[in-house]
Amino acid sequence: MPDLVGDLQDIAELDLDRTARRGYPEAVFCAGKTPEQVGRIAAAVRERPDVTTLFTRADDQHAAAVLAALPDAAHDPDAGLLAWPPAPPDPTGGLVVVLAAGTSDLPVAREAHLTARYLGRESELVVDVGVAGLHRVLARVDLLRRARVVVVAAGMDGALPSVVAGLTSAPVVGLPTSVGYGAAFGGIAALLTMLNACAPGVSVVNIDNGYGAGHLAAQIAAPQDGVPS
Amino acid sequence: MPDLVGDLQDIAELDLDRTARRGYPEAVFCAGKTPEQVGRIAAAVRERPDVTTLFTRADDQHAAAVLAALPDAAHDPDAGLLAWPPAPPDPTGGLVVVLAAGTSDLPVAREAHLTARYLGRESELVVDVGVAGLHRVLARVDLLRRARVVVVAAGMDGALPSVVAGLTSAPVVGLPTSVGYGAAFGGIAALLTMLNACAPGVSVVNIDNGYGAGHLAAQIAAPQDGVPS
Amino acid sequence: MPDLVGDLQDIAELDLDRTARRGYPEAVFCAGKTPEQVGRIAAAVRERPDVTTLFTRADDQHAAAVLAALPDAAHDPDAGLLAWPPAPPDPTGGLVVVLAAGTSDLPVAREAHLTARYLGRESELVVDVGVAGLHRVLARVDLLRRARVVVVAAGMDGALPSVVAGLTSAPVVGLPTSVGYGAAFGGIAALLTMLNACAPGVSVVNIDNGYGAGHLAAQIAAPQDGVPS
Amino acid sequence: MPDLVGDLQDIAELDLDRTARRGYPEAVFCAGKTPEQVGRIAAAVRERPDVTTLFTRADDQHAAAVLAALPDAAHDPDAGLLAWPPAPPDPTGGLVVVLAAGTSDLPVAREAHLTARYLGRESELVVDVGVAGLHRVLARVDLLRRARVVVVAAGMDGALPSVVAGLTSAPVVGLPTSVGYGAAFGGIAALLTMLNACAPGVSVVNIDNGYGAGHLAAQIAAPQDGVPS
Amino acid sequence: MPDLVGDLQDIAELDLDRTARRGYPEAVFCAGKTPEQVGRIAAAVRERPDVTTLFTRADDQHAAAVLAALPDAAHDPDAGLLAWPPAPPDPTGGLVVVLAAGTSDLPVAREAHLTARYLGRESELVVDVGVAGLHRVLARVDLLRRARVVVVAAGMDGALPSVVAGLTSAPVVGLPTSVGYGAAFGGIAALLTMLNACAPGVSVVNIDNGYGAGHLAAQIAAPQDGVPS
Amino acid sequence: MPDLVGDLQDIAELDLDRTARRGYPEAVFCAGKTPEQVGRIAAAVRERPDVTTLFTRADDQHAAAVLAALPDAAHDPDAGLLAWPPAPPDPTGGLVVVLAAGTSDLPVAREAHLTARYLGRESELVVDVGVAGLHRVLARVDLLRRARVVVVAAGMDGALPSVVAGLTSAPVVGLPTSVGYGAAFGGIAALLTMLNACAPGVSVVNIDNGYGAGHLAAQIAAPQDGVPS
Amino acid sequence: MPDLVGDLQDIAELDLDRTARRGYPEAVFCAGKTPEQVGRIAAAVRERPDVTTLFTRADDQHAAAVLAALPDAAHDPDAGLLAWPPAPPDPTGGLVVVLAAGTSDLPVAREAHLTARYLGRESELVVDVGVAGLHRVLARVDLLRRARVVVVAAGMDGALPSVVAGLTSAPVVGLPTSVGYGAAFGGIAALLTMLNACAPGVSVVNIDNGYGAGHLAAQIAAPQDGVPS
Amino acid sequence: MPDLVGDLQDIAELDLDRTARRGYPEAVFCAGKTPEQVGRIAAAVRERPDVTTLFTRADDQHAAAVLAALPDAAHDPDAGLLAWPPAPPDPTGGLVVVLAAGTSDLPVAREAHLTARYLGRESELVVDVGVAGLHRVLARVDLLRRARVVVVAAGMDGALPSVVAGLTSAPVVGLPTSVGYGAAFGGIAALLTMLNACAPGVSVVNIDNGYGAGHLAAQIAAPQDGVPS
Ligand SMILES: Nc1ncnc2c1ncn2[C@@H]1O[C@H](COP(=O)(O)O)[C@@H](O)[C@H]1O
Ligand SMILES: Nc1ncnc2c1ncn2[C@@H]1O[C@H](COP(=O)(O)O)[C@@H](O)[C@H]1O
Ligand SMILES: Nc1ncnc2c1ncn2[C@@H]1O[C@H](COP(=O)(O)O)[C@@H](O)[C@H]1O
Ligand SMILES: Nc1ncnc2c1ncn2[C@@H]1O[C@H](COP(=O)(O)O)[C@@H](O)[C@H]1O
Ligand SMILES: [Mg+2]
Ligand SMILES: [Mg+2]
Ligand SMILES: [Mg+2]
Ligand SMILES: [Mg+2]
Ligand SMILES: [Mg+2]
Ligand SMILES: [Mg+2]
Ligand SMILES: [Mg+2]
Ligand SMILES: [Mg+2]
Repeated sequence: MPDLVGDLQDIAELDLDRTARRGYPEAVFCAGKTPEQVGRIAAAVRERPDVTTLFTRADDQHAAAVLAALPDAAHDPDAGLLAWPPAPPDPTGGLVVVLAAGTSDLPVAREAHLTARYLGRESELVVDVGVAGLHRVLARVDLLRRARVVVVAAGMDGALPSVVAGLTSAPVVGLPTSVGYGAAFGGIAALLTMLNACAPGVSVVNIDNGYGAGHLAAQIAAPQDGVPS
Repeated sequence: MPDLVGDLQDIAELDLDRTARRGYPEAVFCAGKTPEQVGRIAAAVRERPDVTTLFTRADDQHAAAVLAALPDAAHDPDAGLLAWPPAPPDPTGGLVVVLAAGTSDLPVAREAHLTARYLGRESELVVDVGVAGLHRVLARVDLLRRARVVVVAAGMDGALPSVVAGLTSAPVVGLPTSVGYGAAFGGIAALLTMLNACAPGVSVVNIDNGYGAGHLAAQIAAPQDGVPS
Repeated sequence: MPDLVGDLQDIAELDLDRTARRGYPEAVFCAGKTPEQVGRIAAAVRERPDVTTLFTRADDQHAAAVLAALPDAAHDPDAGLLAWPPAPPDPTGGLVVVLAAGTSDLPVAREAHLTARYLGRESELVVDVGVAGLHRVLARVDLLRRARVVVVAAGMDGALPSVVAGLTSAPVVGLPTSVGYGAAFGGIAALLTMLNACAPGVSVVNIDNGYGAGHLAAQIAAPQDGVPS
Repeated sequence: MPDLVGDLQDIAELDLDRTARRGYPEAVFCAGKTPEQVGRIAAAVRERPDVTTLFTRADDQHAAAVLAALPDAAHDPDAGLLAWPPAPPDPTGGLVVVLAAGTSDLPVAREAHLTARYLGRESELVVDVGVAGLHRVLARVDLLRRARVVVVAAGMDGALPSVVAGLTSAPVVGLPTSVGYGAAFGGIAALLTMLNACAPGVSVVNIDNGYGAGHLAAQIAAPQDGVPS
Repeated sequence: MPDLVGDLQDIAELDLDRTARRGYPEAVFCAGKTPEQVGRIAAAVRERPDVTTLFTRADDQHAAAVLAALPDAAHDPDAGLLAWPPAPPDPTGGLVVVLAAGTSDLPVAREAHLTARYLGRESELVVDVGVAGLHRVLARVDLLRRARVVVVAAGMDGALPSVVAGLTSAPVVGLPTSVGYGAAFGGIAALLTMLNACAPGVSVVNIDNGYGAGHLAAQIAAPQDGVPS
Repeated sequence: MPDLVGDLQDIAELDLDRTARRGYPEAVFCAGKTPEQVGRIAAAVRERPDVTTLFTRADDQHAAAVLAALPDAAHDPDAGLLAWPPAPPDPTGGLVVVLAAGTSDLPVAREAHLTARYLGRESELVVDVGVAGLHRVLARVDLLRRARVVVVAAGMDGALPSVVAGLTSAPVVGLPTSVGYGAAFGGIAALLTMLNACAPGVSVVNIDNGYGAGHLAAQIAAPQDGVPS
Repeated sequence: MPDLVGDLQDIAELDLDRTARRGYPEAVFCAGKTPEQVGRIAAAVRERPDVTTLFTRADDQHAAAVLAALPDAAHDPDAGLLAWPPAPPDPTGGLVVVLAAGTSDLPVAREAHLTARYLGRESELVVDVGVAGLHRVLARVDLLRRARVVVVAAGMDGALPSVVAGLTSAPVVGLPTSVGYGAAFGGIAALLTMLNACAPGVSVVNIDNGYGAGHLAAQIAAPQDGVPS
Repeated sequence: MPDLVGDLQDIAELDLDRTARRGYPEAVFCAGKTPEQVGRIAAAVRERPDVTTLFTRADDQHAAAVLAALPDAAHDPDAGLLAWPPAPPDPTGGLVVVLAAGTSDLPVAREAHLTARYLGRESELVVDVGVAGLHRVLARVDLLRRARVVVVAAGMDGALPSVVAGLTSAPVVGLPTSVGYGAAFGGIAALLTMLNACAPGVSVVNIDNGYGAGHLAAQIAAPQDGVPS
């Protein structure tokens, strides 16, 4: 067949100046890429230690390819996330709080939490505070009131963001997860619940999109000194 | 055209002995019937004052047809409900509590509340206790704990049943309403939330089915003396 | 990466006092948790033999982790259920009857049946009484009339609850299963059928949610004021 | 604007020889046509009294336009059906039985029943025999066993065809109706139920498609080689 | 755990007299049953060589279990079908024609074809006559006109039944298959096409339900001598 | 309230140079605009007689507002289309053929046909050639082979594009219409059929988007002399 | 019927202290309430001029009822919004920018814009800058870079938020509108586009939920001095 | 079982004269066929070196079967495509440009690109020019303006075709891919975006249907000399 795949520009046009332009670096979405392609991108990234690059939705083979090119990259296998350089920047701006309704929501909640950290914010993660036992979230009202933004990860009924938004003046980022079965429809039920939150102040990202929730939280909590944080 | 519609048996086969067989009378579902058909059924019902008959989902024309045949029938236009004979029976069994998350859920909640009353139960209705202001439902915990069954009507995010089920040992009947717009999808969002309630003890009836919720609540709260209440 | 997972409170906030608060213990939903997490929860449970803990939706690896911590736990692999302590309590309250429309609905029906047993009710399970051969369910009318509540598990057309509700005054818990293919849509067809049951007295739980159905049945059939309801 | 609509061939290409080719005449689907267009088609039909033409889904304005061109056409306003010439042919072939689960299903059931009659079959219509009161359909087993084909119209849960198919060796044509509300989804729930009928021998036509069901029933019950099948 | 699974009546209530009652034998739906359960049913079937039993949707393990109990059963692995006794009955009644739009539809089409044969009809199978090359189906018009009923299996656009129904007076059973990808939605696209066939005379069975299509075709083409064929 | 609506730039930013940039003028989508807003846009258009402006999806009130500003505009009420200046340009490029499967598809087919004419192409419209009577489309094979592009409007089963694409080498633009009811789902069934056309060479525009189909056809059939036609 | 509707507490439990608790006042959702109910709420609001109350989704009758109780309330009929007291507070915090992709999105965009103003922010509204003519949004890059948050209202393809998010470091609130037809599915297409925005930094509110978008924008742009703005 | 599978005509009716009839050869859709079936078709193809045959959606086993029969066939494993004879024809007609929004869209984009090449067109492929970094597509405006047709492959938000159509007068073929997760719904989100493109000139093929997009592009860009290219 007529050859098509040659060097990097045949498979990717990296947007490495995104940090300069938008204030936040590009992330590499690994799903749907071959490990070989991800490895070539990682090699290119090596030239730019001034930019923090995240590799998201990386399975074991993607991770191996990244680590071959960037052996000291940080790696969280549960969250499917790698970061290089490995150390997150010193935090600036306001506090990000990430809540996970149940233990099963932890991988997605961690993806959000770590993304916010690597994009420069302080972040706290609290697990297993679903509405079936209200006392658990009520015990965190003080923390919620200190937050500049709250990310709430929940699957199944996705009811937690509605409750949290009623307890704080901070904006709430609803992060529906695919936890559940049957009529949970892989996260659609939770997504719809959050879109219809009866308390205002909730917006929603894609199902299981911890990266997007963390990124948005970092933007909302960014320091307001006129320059990108 | 060859004539088909003659007398009652050409349009309906009333199940007037349902009370004897099942313990609860048949209800007449008016939607999709012509006022003339509903009127003919009402006329037949007049022969059986020993059975309480409910006419559900009755619009103004249906109601007029029923009232022409049964002038003293009770009528709640908001709930689209008529009952004959007009007086509900003396209550037996346990307490039914009906909660409405918002004012807009009131017509459906009233349909449930009145159905439970006409099928022989004591019932209390509480309005506007949605999760956006948790203090409102927390203030009713005592009432919830006295209930033999709780019907919870909610539209939009449909989150209230999950919260209520975490606060009481009584079974919760989730009653999703079509209140909302956009991704509320006419009650589907609330329906899915309730089906996925993270607290066990919740089951669900059809969207806007106040009649079904009230009927079920009456069955759950029925006196347990071996004879139908 | 910044370490996040430490001891139990980092992954779960057990609601072990739920029995005191609500009258029913918390269950551990294993799907989406790692075996290691489930194992740590099981170890914590060991401290509380006064509470019956159920582990639901446990696959083989989850089960192994639970059994490592609680070697004498009861285990039903088909239903994906484990219970500890292993002996169900002496039954109180009314009779729960669980019907399965076909043999393929058995795992879900067993999950409901065992849950009701472990939450303290007497329960009877009847299999393969679908509406394609009506004589099979008609032969059980006496049993249905002795029931305080009937759980009906069915996939495909999900028609059995409508028929059962017409034959008994007990409330019917519709339990749609994912049995079927094509336009069964993993249980959606059966779910919709049950939500639209033309006989009143049917409410519905999530697809394949045997645990929820059994829990609800136990609540409906609970003893009232110390005497069997 | 450049003129486009002139005479009949600009709006329709009637297939008046379909009877010769397929054995059944073309029907005119009025929905989406202007009354004026339907009137022009009716005028053309007048030339062909040897063919029975049905006008389906005709609202009041369509009907007026047909009756202006064919004053003696038969008209059933509930079913939205007109026929010309007005007298149905003498019946040949086997018996068609049409069942309607509830009174609200009557318009669609009548469309099926009349179509079968106009296409040359004997047909019987039975109303209000839904599964909530099984004794009603069980009382018709003899009739069902005399049928060459059974059309079963049902909305809401759509459970009746499954039950009927278990009681007769005749093929069952499931005719879902849009009767219901909420999660009935305008007939989708009934449609899915019938597609998943646990008893074999059921096939399905479009929601509210009484014409299609009656046409198919006429074909199934057609005489074979000149003698009644 | 309290033991539940004992002998056959704990897992199945075989409807072996269905042939006497309905004229057609019960089939065993293997999906969702364990091989062990299917094997126990097969052993029970062995007692009744007077009834032809079909095992549908059997994977390799199900087939092995059936063949262990009934070593001479006929087996078509592509169609997932087994039959015992292995020889189909001598054909009676009219001709069944089964068309497959493409080669990929062959397994489902074979399931229909073989079911019709085992239920006592003559059947012809024609493959790869989709509408992209109309000459292929036009070349079979004579065969179509000899058919008492035509089963048309098609995936993707599912357009073939509409075309076939315009060419024959026989009823058409639309058999949508899950062949396709993307917006074929596992057969939903084909299913909807067939439900909306612009030519009357088409009814539809579930996606990939070759068994149901073949069963229905056998009923439609049954001999009309008053006794079940 | 703080006033917001002032002059034209507060409600629209007309892209009147689109013809220069893209070769085709902007069209004004009237649905969702107030007649007053459409009228103000029409008044602005009057300054630019060098550009042909189309107003699409105009109801009677929109049309009145346009005609008040541009009294000599051409208007096709069925298609909801207005054009100014009223005369279409002299045709250049290849032939556009627009087929409508049924009479009910005519408004949408006319929108496509007129759009192609106003964007500078020769166009022929043929009506009522659906697949239920194949001889009708087969009789147009010569016309189809002269076409540079064929637009095929069809509702219900949407099967006509698959058949047409098998008969010509020209690209086919599938134009699904909302004609139908029940499981036609307002054109979704036809849309899916066309997306899954088993004959290659079919692409699809939005349901009822006659404007988009006509625009695309004009682009495909554009003269190839290096300058926009 | 037993009377149920008495004074205000029977229909609503106003959360007038929400401002103190959350920093933002409660809004009254008028859809689904009777004008009479809305009027009674408005009368109660009159006692609290210290709180700004918004009435959302108010039709003409709702508005008349509000204005009867609060004659000097501000009213924007297009946006279905009323506010009392009528003057918005002096703006504090950062700049909110609201973009509308087309003129038809204006009512929803205005609802967002006015909500942000009444909750205390400076807001700018820009109309008709959809991606079909990129120069329009590119001409606003300076404004976008001054924004603390950008609300982007778009129907049809909903593509504008993805483009805007690539041009600014501010968080983007996607506000899908129901503008469009056919496969726009009343805003679902735009909603899905925004949920899947390939540029991070986009979150989404419900379809046509201008109120929610404006509320969230006000929270994100709130002044950061430790006290609610 | 009665034997059914014999020689080629039992599994396929090749349409090898499609090139003569339509100007383009038939392609073999491998998904759903057994490798053995594909191999037998490949063997038949060997007799016709005058026709270019494509094998699409071929997995490794399909490819091995084709290569066994046609050892010199060209094979692109990523795109799942094989071609025989292996050399594409000399290009005629206009230029096809294929854009891929992200690296993950490459396999589908290559399928389109190669199909256009094998059907006789010049084609250029450009990768990773999604709208999150607009400068990337703006840098290709010159290439876009030289194209006779542009194929745009995109997953997730599918926004790129709307942007491209606003920049060129060439028709745009939207090619949605299944890249993404959650509410991307396997490409449905991108499909809907493209169907609702606010810029006219976009039509859409099935999700991941690179073959269909390339085929259509070849037809649109075909030389216009009156004979099929
Ligand atoms: N996990 C993720 N979910 C959604 N979007 C992502 C994710 N990771 C990266 N992205 C976005 O996808 C783009 C990369 O796509 P690609 O060019 O295919 O690598 C980046 O610019 C990110 O904005
Ligand atoms: N509002 C309602 N919602 C659901 N089911 C109802 C309702 N009202 C009555 N029904 C049931 O519908 C049946 C009556 O249907 P029909 O024979 O059409 O009047 C009754 O037997 C009731 O069980
Ligand atoms: N392949 C099939 N598709 C649909 N229904 C089937 C199929 N095979 C068997 N059945 C039906 O399902 C019933 C058996 O269900 P079960 O009791 O679970 O074996 C039989 O009575 C058949 O009517
Ligand atoms: N009937 C139509 N269907 C789809 N898009 C249209 C239609 N009419 C106009 N458009 C497009 O919508 C844009 C106008 O939107 P607006 O700015 O709201 O008038 C135009 O640029 C056209 O490209
Ligand atoms: Mg928990
Ligand atoms: Mg309220
Ligand atoms: Mg069975
Ligand atoms: Mg009835
Ligand atoms: Mg083929
Ligand atoms: Mg026609
Ligand atoms: Mg515009
Ligand atoms: Mg990229």
